[in-house]
Amino acid sequence: MGIFSKDIETFDDLFVHQLRDVYYAEKQLVKALPKMAEKATSPQLKQAFTNHLAETKGHVSRVEQVFKMHGVEAEAVKCPAIDGIIEEANDIAGEIDNKTVLNAALIAAAQAVEHYEITRYGSLIAWAKQLGRNDCASVLQKTLDEEKAADKKLTTMAESKINLRAAS
Amino acid sequence: MGIFSKDIETFDDLFVHQLRDVYYAEKQLVKALPKMAEKATSPQLKQAFTNHLAETKGHVSRVEQVFKMHGVEAEAVKCPAIDGIIEEANDIAGEIDNKTVLNAALIAAAQAVEHYEITRYGSLIAWAKQLGRNDCASVLQKTLDEEKAADKKLTTMAESKINLRAAS
Repeated sequence: MGIFSKDIETFDDLFVHQLRDVYYAEKQLVKALPKMAEKATSPQLKQAFTNHLAETKGHVSRVEQVFKMHGVEAEAVKCPAIDGIIEEANDIAGEIDNKTVLNAALIAAAQAVEHYEITRYGSLIAWAKQLGRNDCASVLQKTLDEEKAADKKLTTMAESKINLRAAS
Repeated sequence: MGIFSKDIETFDDLFVHQLRDVYYAEKQLVKALPKMAEKATSPQLKQAFTNHLAETKGHVSRVEQVFKMHGVEAEAVKCPAIDGIIEEANDIAGEIDNKTVLNAALIAAAQAVEHYEITRYGSLIAWAKQLGRNDCASVLQKTLDEEKAADKKLTTMAESKINLRAAS
């Protein structure tokens, strides 16, 4: 959390802190997704990770846009939650040799990341609205919609194909 | 992840590993929720955390039941994701003096926990079904339903009351 979190006095400070948290998370994902795409052996899954990387870069830009709209400097705070989720994804991927089982594990890991983002953007949007920043909420909502769509797509891919192959 | 994850060779191993992951997560939550209830100053939020503690103890029992049904020993594997999420919750709570802002942060932290569980149980249920263990899936589904209901309840509480007070 670092030195910034000591400055959380108001609801606005909490909003800005959380924005810095997702900024960090999105930037970590920009680094993690190419590695996940590389590990995936299903071409469909590889493509999904590559597509989501492009979306994630857009999410970084949107968070920067919200920082600007809200008149605060774009800064990331290192937060243990996303680090733990990514660490767990790397750990489990490193422990599986069977390629079809690895694909199933990678999808689950990606969905854990998506759900982390879904919950954080959900809070941010509710807070932005409460702070009278419907303009910020509207920008963040676009990302939330994309995270939810990505999660749904992964569920469909897992249940229609990846899990079937992993179990066979 | 420890020594167990090195044994992930089959899809069944992955299912058991993930079961051990949520077993660890639920047990960590049994320890974390009383602290969150203690920190919350809204009586409604305090009550929600206390109620969810009782539910969480039931979730631990259900995971033990699934271990038994599946014929494997009930064992937890230490996983970085839930530790990171709880660490982040503790960090942020420790950095906020303003009680109404703290309540808003605590709700968001609890929702991050719920979403982690929602994604993990979602994968476990899909995997159990694919493995022909509809009986295990059915037990895990009860917990998933409770996690989703808990998350929804927290959203309602945040948007109807807690955020309003935090912003005022």
